[in-house]
Amino acid sequence: MRDPSYDILFQPVKIGPVTAPNRFYQVPHCTGMGHRYPKSEAHLRGIKAEGGWGVVSTQETEIHPTSDITPANEARLWDDTDIAALHLVTEAVHAHDSLAAIQLAHNGLHTANRYSRCIPLAPSSAPVGSDDPVQARAMDKADIREFRRWHVDAARRAKSAGFDIIYVYAGHDMTLLQHFLLQRHNHRSDEYGGSFRNRLRLFQEVIADTKDAVGDTCAVAVRLAVDELLGAEGIRCDIEAREIIEALAEEPDLWDVNLSDWSNDSQTSRFAKEGYQEAYTGFVKSVTTKPVVGVGRYTSPDTMVRLIKKGHLDLIGAARPSIADPFLPKKIEEGRLDEIRECIGCNICVSGDNTCVPMRCTQNPTIGEEWRRGWHPEIMTQKAPPKDVLVVGGGPAGLEAATSLIRGGSNVVLAEAGNHWGGRVTRESQLPGLSEWARVRDWRLGQLKQASNAELYLESPLTASEVMEYGFPHVVLATGSYWRADGVGRTHRRPLAFLDNNCVLTPDDVMAGKLDTDRSTGPIVIFDDDRFYMGSVLAELAVATSRKVVLVTPSPVVAPWSDHTLEQSRIQKRMIDLNVEIIPSSRLENLVNGRLTIECVYSSRSHEIECATLITVTSRLPNDTLWTELQEHRDHWPEAGIQSVERIGDCLAPGLIASAVHSGHKFARELLGGGTEIVRREDVNVQGL
Amino acid sequence: MRDPSYDILFQPVKIGPVTAPNRFYQVPHCTGMGHRYPKSEAHLRGIKAEGGWGVVSTQETEIHPTSDITPANEARLWDDTDIAALHLVTEAVHAHDSLAAIQLAHNGLHTANRYSRCIPLAPSSAPVGSDDPVQARAMDKADIREFRRWHVDAARRAKSAGFDIIYVYAGHDMTLLQHFLLQRHNHRSDEYGGSFRNRLRLFQEVIADTKDAVGDTCAVAVRLAVDELLGAEGIRCDIEAREIIEALAEEPDLWDVNLSDWSNDSQTSRFAKEGYQEAYTGFVKSVTTKPVVGVGRYTSPDTMVRLIKKGHLDLIGAARPSIADPFLPKKIEEGRLDEIRECIGCNICVSGDNTCVPMRCTQNPTIGEEWRRGWHPEIMTQKAPPKDVLVVGGGPAGLEAATSLIRGGSNVVLAEAGNHWGGRVTRESQLPGLSEWARVRDWRLGQLKQASNAELYLESPLTASEVMEYGFPHVVLATGSYWRADGVGRTHRRPLAFLDNNCVLTPDDVMAGKLDTDRSTGPIVIFDDDRFYMGSVLAELAVATSRKVVLVTPSPVVAPWSDHTLEQSRIQKRMIDLNVEIIPSSRLENLVNGRLTIECVYSSRSHEIECATLITVTSRLPNDTLWTELQEHRDHWPEAGIQSVERIGDCLAPGLIASAVHSGHKFARELLGGGTEIVRREDVNVQGL
Repeated sequence: MRDPSYDILFQPVKIGPVTAPNRFYQVPHCTGMGHRYPKSEAHLRGIKAEGGWGVVSTQETEIHPTSDITPANEARLWDDTDIAALHLVTEAVHAHDSLAAIQLAHNGLHTANRYSRCIPLAPSSAPVGSDDPVQARAMDKADIREFRRWHVDAARRAKSAGFDIIYVYAGHDMTLLQHFLLQRHNHRSDEYGGSFRNRLRLFQEVIADTKDAVGDTCAVAVRLAVDELLGAEGIRCDIEAREIIEALAEEPDLWDVNLSDWSNDSQTSRFAKEGYQEAYTGFVKSVTTKPVVGVGRYTSPDTMVRLIKKGHLDLIGAARPSIADPFLPKKIEEGRLDEIRECIGCNICVSGDNTCVPMRCTQNPTIGEEWRRGWHPEIMTQKAPPKDVLVVGGGPAGLEAATSLIRGGSNVVLAEAGNHWGGRVTRESQLPGLSEWARVRDWRLGQLKQASNAELYLESPLTASEVMEYGFPHVVLATGSYWRADGVGRTHRRPLAFLDNNCVLTPDDVMAGKLDTDRSTGPIVIFDDDRFYMGSVLAELAVATSRKVVLVTPSPVVAPWSDHTLEQSRIQKRMIDLNVEIIPSSRLENLVNGRLTIECVYSSRSHEIECATLITVTSRLPNDTLWTELQEHRDHWPEAGIQSVERIGDCLAPGLIASAVHSGHKFARELLGGGTEIVRREDVNVQGL
Repeated sequence: MRDPSYDILFQPVKIGPVTAPNRFYQVPHCTGMGHRYPKSEAHLRGIKAEGGWGVVSTQETEIHPTSDITPANEARLWDDTDIAALHLVTEAVHAHDSLAAIQLAHNGLHTANRYSRCIPLAPSSAPVGSDDPVQARAMDKADIREFRRWHVDAARRAKSAGFDIIYVYAGHDMTLLQHFLLQRHNHRSDEYGGSFRNRLRLFQEVIADTKDAVGDTCAVAVRLAVDELLGAEGIRCDIEAREIIEALAEEPDLWDVNLSDWSNDSQTSRFAKEGYQEAYTGFVKSVTTKPVVGVGRYTSPDTMVRLIKKGHLDLIGAARPSIADPFLPKKIEEGRLDEIRECIGCNICVSGDNTCVPMRCTQNPTIGEEWRRGWHPEIMTQKAPPKDVLVVGGGPAGLEAATSLIRGGSNVVLAEAGNHWGGRVTRESQLPGLSEWARVRDWRLGQLKQASNAELYLESPLTASEVMEYGFPHVVLATGSYWRADGVGRTHRRPLAFLDNNCVLTPDDVMAGKLDTDRSTGPIVIFDDDRFYMGSVLAELAVATSRKVVLVTPSPVVAPWSDHTLEQSRIQKRMIDLNVEIIPSSRLENLVNGRLTIECVYSSRSHEIECATLITVTSRLPNDTLWTELQEHRDHWPEAGIQSVERIGDCLAPGLIASAVHSGHKFARELLGGGTEIVRREDVNVQGL
């Protein structure tokens, strides 16, 4: 079944006292679950193991109340009472013969300890990294001894929870051990500060402590930031990182190397392509004989083989690719390459953790739903008999619904009004930087085209009468949405009358090429009240016209929500670099004869700017004409043989592509399995007041 | 004991089928606990009842998964499994013969349903209020029927949990019921939209539903926003609110009226004084015979009496005053007026909920610690015998430590180096808008001056030798902190050499009057990397010099953390109104001859501005000289009779005044009671995977 050229990926790799069954290594990544949602966490990790990941890691695990990153939902090992939750994880992973790894972390000045109210700890007195009005205190020698003890205690707890690999973590500018390494955080004058050797001391001690404490049966891994992309202000791969790894080369059992901070490590496809970390991590294997794992959003087995063969890595690290397709290794093993669902690099997964809730994924609608809804990424629960279903609309919701339905044995007719598949995914993937998003369409279309129980029709707009005439027992509408042209959004809750008789374009207009045919030469003003990616992406497109481009937004920054996908500062920098004029904290007041009056959201002071073309990016409305018409015929559904009509995706409520995919998937599960609307919750114990 | 002029405050008030024992009414307020920390929640509310509040309310309580405001920790009644947690609350409140009230809420388009992933609901299709890339869908008639059913189900659950008063909530621009009332959110053309009567319909139906469902034994209260301070864009007290209350005057059993949104309702003392809502809520009693409760940060019993007597309110609503002093009613009742600890209006309490953790309070260090540390606001646990303690430093930490120690029976000598009490509290309370903060000093000093077991000395700087000589068995240092002049903070992690030979002032310098003696006439530039209140407060002071004032900050807005205290937009508006030039998203690059080079944090583009005087507001360093000297004598402590030396407050780690007070209190608890370092946690159930 397996192509022999991929055999090398399935070789076992010895990591200290343990052996990984293959080279697929799910590096530590957040899930937004952690200690808040322990059963959800265990199920998610177990499914990764089932999908063939030889090593499955937790996210960062707080070792002590002085490292409390509430309200983020990370793992926690403050004391022995936390062992049980993590034991669930190791059981789930071991059930599939994979190794379970845990990333112990002390967050140092990265966190404000909002819940525990403990004073954060740091090499030197300094404010915490967030805006919280909290300063960390400089650790004295007794504090350092305590910290080392906490780490050892946590490692012992991790071992007793059943973990095979235990991390010492100096990465992402998030941990005390990295802070001690860095000159910008470590201003000490004792033997833990100053020279390179002194700054290295604590890290080296903790690696040794951990090996002493648990190294008999557990591998001790090090996760190290090898470059911070800060030039001389931070760690550089060719200078400090090389020195660190040379100094400690054989001390850990494994090197897990990546970029810092998180926004550099987990770059989106808009800003970086597969393998973007290779230039930084490539040197590591040349200075250690220990196995090396690294990441780069790898989804191609050929690339993976190349990385092993050229001696770049020993283990293929993955976070996002393992989220988009938990069964990626299994699919390579079983020669089902065309079934691999590739990560699109959108970081919606990251936004889950950053908004303090369980993660979701644009490609994998089952992530986060493994325990609470019982969704398995590869198995469609099928309690009811397969159905005949008409899916109207070939965008992300319709494609996902159809794909999931055929996997559950239903017969599907998919009718798309337009002349291409993918709907908004296709349109948006043609915008600057978003080409990988087309994978949402391509994977589903690939599955559907191979299926005997799916019929696909392009250029097939349907009226309510036609739907009634066809008489499918189940009809699902995935007719999408369109951008409003009346200014209504978060800021302007009522239509702006002054937009009526002016040259106003919506994102739909721009995606349809109307900017190219616009004859104006004056400034293009984008009013972005959407606050995620669309405004800035259209600005990139507008810049290509060589006209002046102004971005007006009620937010203080461009694309504020993209902070949760780790993109905000990159987007703002790109706007500045492209000479887009940014006018933040402003709303629209009037538009007359090419003069746009904008008003400060704080002070209501207003001023005019030139505006030849206004692009409003505010909100969307569902395409629900067909829905409304079918509702009007509701009494005649039975005689037409129609049992159900539902809406999914943007035509139900405009949202993320991820939401559309989730909506389509949920519809399919409910039609086939019934009753998954009931979500299990993880409750706090109320006994023993 | 009680002054008879306050008798009126202790009259019972009939509220529908139940009777409040007095007029002290703790209106619904968030705690940051809710369903996440049910035991903490119950204990906090129970202590309010013990302190004499005749009615004690929960915070908003989500009635359904379509109203999921995760990660905020509110109460929850999604289904019957949530009853047990709320039963803990009613038990705790009833134990002291108070009434328990619950504020049912459906958050409509206020929330993105991050955890439940349900589509938010609204009168009309619209984006949610947050930046989340989520849109609410327009409810159809079936949705409205469902919503009414959910509300009734939740009311029945609330009744079975033991609540006496059940709210129907249309306030703070946060709930579906308010959204239906508002023209800016309700664009419907059916009988639930359009005319005033139509927009009122759902609210009226739900009040009636609730009365039908639970009105036999429970009072049904309405919480209504009577003004949104938006002019014609929102509800106005003299127009829409009057119409609403006239239309529904006798339908609920109680009217709880306030301003919307939350930032208008809970204004800080920097922006509004006690009683600031009276102009808006004053009319209500003239249009209904039902009891009326309102708020206004009332701490004065005389004011309370006036409000009742003039027929403005029937019940004195309080959120923040009941947090600062849960025993406020009891102290009035027992004639202990000078023991009332008045709210300073700083909204640190609010910041707890807004940062998704249990609340804290500047005045009341026990809030949030009732269950997990077992702290009672009026009782100092005293397991060890009282001690003789030398407290060095009369700022907030020292004053709180001394006050708490004497309440536990210890003998305290409090030595302050300067010529006034209060330390930073006194200095900061002299800054524009912060005068009420002096209450932190005044309450503690008042307690200490009446005590026989406290000796207070001003102008008493102490050296290590003197401390050793005095030989107190316990010494606690509360020597405060000072602002750095080297630029080190969140943005510049290493000292800026170019600041050395320039005219740079710190906040300490400004508070010491150095701006007044500064002979420069050119621009004053404030570099604010502190990100909370200090930068903008100093800007207000600088404006008074009539020199040009520029505020440079690495943040995109002024004082970003003040968003959590609901002040950010007011602060930014004030800066603009005062003609302070704001240069956001910038760091410092150089300062030469009155020319300051600043650099964009995104693009690194730089430019020069004029700067005659630079005020750096970045971070602080502990005043730890005495600590360091005493550490050097550590071996001689026993012979000097010293058993312990500890640090508290800013000299341990610079932070909020609230943190200093908490630190002083914690020290006293631990010295008297031992072992409170162990914090109980509320864990998620891990059984039954």
